[in-house]
Amino acid sequence: MTEPLVIALDAMGGDHAPNIVIKGAHIARERYPDIHFLIYGDEARIKRQLRRRRRLRGCVTVHHTDEVVPGDASLGVALRGGRNSSMRLAIDAVRDGEAAGVVSAGNTGALMAMAKIALKTLPGIDRPAIASFFPTLEGESVMLDLGANVVCDANNLVEFAVMGQIFARTVLGFVEPTVGLLNVGSEEMKGHEEIRAAHAILREDSLPLKYHGFIEGDDIARGTVDVVVTDGFSGNIALKTAEGTARLVTTFLSDAFRSSLSSRLGYLLAHRALKKLRARIDPRRYNGAMFLGLNGIVVKSHGGTDALGFANAIGVAADMALGNINERIKEELAHPTWTVEDEAAKAAV
Amino acid sequence: MTEPLVIALDAMGGDHAPNIVIKGAHIARERYPDIHFLIYGDEARIKRQLRRRRRLRGCVTVHHTDEVVPGDASLGVALRGGRNSSMRLAIDAVRDGEAAGVVSAGNTGALMAMAKIALKTLPGIDRPAIASFFPTLEGESVMLDLGANVVCDANNLVEFAVMGQIFARTVLGFVEPTVGLLNVGSEEMKGHEEIRAAHAILREDSLPLKYHGFIEGDDIARGTVDVVVTDGFSGNIALKTAEGTARLVTTFLSDAFRSSLSSRLGYLLAHRALKKLRARIDPRRYNGAMFLGLNGIVVKSHGGTDALGFANAIGVAADMALGNINERIKEELAHPTWTVEDEAAKAAV
Repeated sequence: MTEPLVIALDAMGGDHAPNIVIKGAHIARERYPDIHFLIYGDEARIKRQLRRRRRLRGCVTVHHTDEVVPGDASLGVALRGGRNSSMRLAIDAVRDGEAAGVVSAGNTGALMAMAKIALKTLPGIDRPAIASFFPTLEGESVMLDLGANVVCDANNLVEFAVMGQIFARTVLGFVEPTVGLLNVGSEEMKGHEEIRAAHAILREDSLPLKYHGFIEGDDIARGTVDVVVTDGFSGNIALKTAEGTARLVTTFLSDAFRSSLSSRLGYLLAHRALKKLRARIDPRRYNGAMFLGLNGIVVKSHGGTDALGFANAIGVAADMALGNINERIKEELAHPTWTVEDEAAKAAV
Repeated sequence: MTEPLVIALDAMGGDHAPNIVIKGAHIARERYPDIHFLIYGDEARIKRQLRRRRRLRGCVTVHHTDEVVPGDASLGVALRGGRNSSMRLAIDAVRDGEAAGVVSAGNTGALMAMAKIALKTLPGIDRPAIASFFPTLEGESVMLDLGANVVCDANNLVEFAVMGQIFARTVLGFVEPTVGLLNVGSEEMKGHEEIRAAHAILREDSLPLKYHGFIEGDDIARGTVDVVVTDGFSGNIALKTAEGTARLVTTFLSDAFRSSLSSRLGYLLAHRALKKLRARIDPRRYNGAMFLGLNGIVVKSHGGTDALGFANAIGVAADMALGNINERIKEELAHPTWTVEDEAAKAAV
């Protein structure tokens, strides 16, 4: 018999908690039959959701708590008051070795801050980053950081590159993922000081990753590289600009189909194919942002997602745990070529 | 009789010069019957293009030059060697008051550098910005800076806000355009120091603009504000990410239509409506990036555009000239409330 994969769930985070959390766990259980959930939150409400789900009940342990980190809480409030919150208890389960990973749809800032305090960063990692998948013309890619670090230095960017490529190999199954640095042009002299310094470090052959060089915003969707590395400010803007643009084009598309009788008929005929298109760019499919660089697996689900989206976020945590992502990051960071010194970064500018 | 509107054209910039430049001028002439063009470049090649265009010939003056700024020239090379280049001579026509504006599809960096040297910035403007239109769910919006300034301080961002809103009123015809600062969240404490300082200045009621506050990447396409203000690094990434994402979705859409017999038939029926969709997000429609803050109108066309795209870029220059954009920027900057002091910016952090 296989060892069960234990995932801790913050049942109270997000707009539709705890319902979509329990429904999401139900869907995820079908995909990962050996999974076991530690669920933290309002026991009565959780049990009500479990009542109709007999098979899920068999692989769940519920831990009651009244405390919840509000979605709009400031970081200070969340951290001061949150010691017995569903979010914090779920993170603590990872810290204490009871769970291999935690998934929450709650407040991103609070989740990152609590996770840093409880789990600490991996040795050799200065700052954790938020990473996520994207659909591209070539398949899928990973981008990081998506907002954990508004200001980044060259070493942070290099660490993101290392973590991102390990993630691409471990979870996405790429054999030799290529890494690109997001910039405003592909020439050597483009961009600000930090990004040029990171570029100088990354293009050294000694590093165990396949560095492509600078890429531009349109390369993200083109799939020019498998791992897109950027600071949290630009990464967050790129992520949300992409989401907004996809919504704009699909809205224009709906308008177009509604514009005449013949186009309505056309829609009916193409309906199944268009459903596939929608599935390809469905945000729920890409739900589950990974906090990379922490001494434990933490996945943030979108707060407004549904059960299917939450199940996908659980899937991301499960795949990271099954791929031993953090052990692999630790191993590669322990590699001597990874001792990136400030001097090297400065000399390289 | 009306005074003719004179626009200088760099005939040699871009991938398909001078053909698309002359064809573009031909299209633009239909829309602006009082226009006159000063065309700089290879006279023989230009005249060959003019031969079949009798009506255009009547409103064109050709100035011959052999020199061209190569599309891939480094800034130094472009500036040293470019004094008699078609690009520089066309800019000089604006400096000397012979033309109201200049349009070029050549090297962006060289165009900005030459324009700064020849035209200088407007009084009160520290740094010019690149601006462009975008389609949104609400209609259209303007975003700046799109890449002229990789690093910006609070005052630069405030100047962009002023210029952008004047542009939105003058060229887009908005009565009271709203302005937003692109950030990674809408809360006060979000983002880096420069953006928070700019936010503090902009939200003061004394400024003659309607400041919305921080916006996020998905607000660009949503049309939450009419003018999106950002530094050139994030702006360039947002612009190109949006272009790439639109291309991704339309490619997925084409794939979907090709996937079955019934979807192909659906495509035929919806064909006309889909053509309208394509027109709404056609990059040629939004061709023509404005260099705002210079003492003269300079419009950069995409290097790979066609005649229709180039005609649109000419249209942008013409509308800016007809709207007296620079006079209006000068007037508003001379307004006492616009004396943004460094102290104010610092105190506001």
